[in-house]
Amino acid sequence: MQKGKSSIEFEAPPVISSSACVAGKKEGEGPLGPLIDVVEQDEMFGTETWEQAESAMQKQAADLALEKGDIRRQEIRYLFAGDLLGQLIATSFGTVDMEIPLFGLYGACSTIGEALTLSAMTVHGGYGDRVLAVSSSHFATAEKQFRFPLAYGNQRPFSSTWTVTGAGAFVVSDSRKDAGGGSAKITGVTPGKIVDFGSRDSMNMGAAMAPAAYGTIRQNFQDFGVDETHYDRIITGDLGEVGSKILLDMMRQSGSDLTGIHMDCGMEIFEKETQDTHAGGSGCGCAAVTLCAMVLPRIRSGEWKRVLFLPTGALLSTVSFNEGQSIPGICHGVVLEQI
Amino acid sequence: MQKGKSSIEFEAPPVISSSACVAGKKEGEGPLGPLIDVVEQDEMFGTETWEQAESAMQKQAADLALEKGDIRRQEIRYLFAGDLLGQLIATSFGTVDMEIPLFGLYGACSTIGEALTLSAMTVHGGYGDRVLAVSSSHFATAEKQFRFPLAYGNQRPFSSTWTVTGAGAFVVSDSRKDAGGGSAKITGVTPGKIVDFGSRDSMNMGAAMAPAAYGTIRQNFQDFGVDETHYDRIITGDLGEVGSKILLDMMRQSGSDLTGIHMDCGMEIFEKETQDTHAGGSGCGCAAVTLCAMVLPRIRSGEWKRVLFLPTGALLSTVSFNEGQSIPGICHGVVLEQI
Repeated sequence: MQKGKSSIEFEAPPVISSSACVAGKKEGEGPLGPLIDVVEQDEMFGTETWEQAESAMQKQAADLALEKGDIRRQEIRYLFAGDLLGQLIATSFGTVDMEIPLFGLYGACSTIGEALTLSAMTVHGGYGDRVLAVSSSHFATAEKQFRFPLAYGNQRPFSSTWTVTGAGAFVVSDSRKDAGGGSAKITGVTPGKIVDFGSRDSMNMGAAMAPAAYGTIRQNFQDFGVDETHYDRIITGDLGEVGSKILLDMMRQSGSDLTGIHMDCGMEIFEKETQDTHAGGSGCGCAAVTLCAMVLPRIRSGEWKRVLFLPTGALLSTVSFNEGQSIPGICHGVVLEQI
Repeated sequence: MQKGKSSIEFEAPPVISSSACVAGKKEGEGPLGPLIDVVEQDEMFGTETWEQAESAMQKQAADLALEKGDIRRQEIRYLFAGDLLGQLIATSFGTVDMEIPLFGLYGACSTIGEALTLSAMTVHGGYGDRVLAVSSSHFATAEKQFRFPLAYGNQRPFSSTWTVTGAGAFVVSDSRKDAGGGSAKITGVTPGKIVDFGSRDSMNMGAAMAPAAYGTIRQNFQDFGVDETHYDRIITGDLGEVGSKILLDMMRQSGSDLTGIHMDCGMEIFEKETQDTHAGGSGCGCAAVTLCAMVLPRIRSGEWKRVLFLPTGALLSTVSFNEGQSIPGICHGVVLEQI
C-alpha cells in the first residue's frame, strides 16, 4: 500500500466511474472544444458576478457528472473540491446546494490532482463507496484575483498563460462495490511537496512549477521502480510552453528523454497561433477539463494503457507577490490505467 | 468503518502522538497562557511582514511537535495544513522547508478539524504511519485580509470575534505501528457539509457558523446512535458568545440540553472582561491552540474520557462579502477519546 518514500499503490484500484466538464466560449473554440460536455457561450453563466459564474459552472459540472453516471447526490459520500480564489468562494457557493460533506482543498492549479488523490485514498480506505472530486477556474475571476482589472487591458508577456474558464467533476468509486464501467482506474498516487527554486515572475508560472513537476515525476519513478517507458503518456497540468521546455531539459539532464511521451494540458486546450494564449492555458480548470475531455476517453478506448497525470500549481497570492516573496510550486501525481 | 450517513468509525483508532502550540502575546495573557508551549512576545516573530510571521509561527509549532515526540521530519509521510489567507500563503511559506508532501486545506476556522479528519483517515487507511496536521492564524494577517488596515483603528461590534495569533501542530500516528504514548485517540469523525442560513454580517461570524455546528452535532448523534450524554464535553471551535447561545438554543429546541457539556474554544482562549475581545477568539489558530493547550491534556489525564471536538468555519472572502453574498458555515466533528 505505502510505496517507496511518498507514494501509494492501491491493491483494489478505485475507478473514475463518471466525469463531466463544462467550459467557456474560448475553450470551446480550442482543439478540445468538440470533446467538452458543455460549452457555455455566456461567460457570466447567467449570473450577476464572475464569481457566481464560476460557482454555477462548478455546480453544472458536478450535476452533469452525476447525471452521466446515473448517480444520485445521496450516493456521494464526500466531496473534495477547490478553486483558485481566496477562501475558495467559487467552491463554497458552487457546492452548498449539493449538501454533501465537503473537504475544501487548495493546491492552486494542482487542485484536481490533490482532489483525485484524496478521493482515491478515501474510497480505497473503505470510507465511502463513491466520492466526488471537483475543481474550477474562470478567466475573469482569476484575472481579478491575481492580476489587473479586465477593463485595464494590460499586455501579457509571451511566458504568461491564459486561465481556463472551465470546471471538471469526477466520481471516484470503490471497484469492489461499484460494478459499473468507468473510464479509468487510479492505481497509484504520488502526492507532491512544495518546491521553491526562487522564481519571482508571476507572468511566468510555468518556470515556477516545472521543478515541482520534475520532483514528483522523479519521486514517482523511484517509488514505483519504473522509468518513463512505464507510461504511455506523462501529462503535466499547466506548465505551458515555457515550463514544459524547462521540465524536459531537467528530465533530460537526469537521463530521461520524455520526447513523444510528455504532454501538457495547458498546451492541449488552446491553439497557440490562433487563440493568442501565449504559453498556454492554466488554472484549476485546465487540467480538470483536459482530463475529462481528452485523457480519460483515450484511456477508456485503450489508446493509452497507462498515464501519469500531474496537475501542477503555483503557490502565490497578490499579497505574497507584492511582498516580494518567491513563487513555490507543487505537483501531485496520479497514475491512471485502463480498466 | 462507514458509520451512518456521513461518519467514519475507526476500528484501530489513530492516536495524536505529539502536539505543540505557539501563540502571541495577547493569547499568552489569556486563561490558556500558562498551558501554551511557546508564547512569543514579538508579534512579527522576527520577520519583516505579518504573513512571514504567521509562516514562522506555523513552522515553529510543527518543529516543536516533532521535537516533543522525538520524531524526525523524515518519519512524517504527509502534511495536512491550512490557514485563513488567500491561496494559503502562510502555509506555503511555513511548510516549504519541511519537504513533506502537502495536502493544502481550506476550511476557514474549521481547518484543524478537516486536517485531523484527513490525517486519521490516512493513517488508518495504512497510507502512512505518521502524518502531521497543522493550522494557523494571525490577528494582523486576518484583519488585513478580511477587514480594515490595523492603523485605521476601526471600532468592533460586540458580536465580533478576535482572530487568535496562534498555530497548532498534531502528529497523528498509526496505533498499530507506533507504540508510543500519545494524548488521545481519534475514534471517529463526522465531516461536515456547508450550511447557509443566509447570514450576511461578517462582524457576527458566530451566528453564521452555529447552524453548521448544530448540523454536524446532530449528524454525529444520528450516525453513532448516541446523544449528548455520550460525551464528557462537546467543544465547538470559535462560535464565541453569540454563536454559542444560538447553538445551545437550537440544540434545546431539538431536545438536547448541552448545559455543562458545551464549551467553545473562542470563549476559553480569552478573558472577555479584561482582554476586550468581545464575543471571543476565532481563526484557524483558535481551535488548534485550545485543543493542544487545554483539551488534549485533560483527555490524557482522564478528566474527560470522550470529547466531540468541532472546529467551525465561516466561508467568506472580501470579494463574496462585497458582492453581497451570504456567509455559509461549515463544521467538522472529531471524536477524541482517552487512550
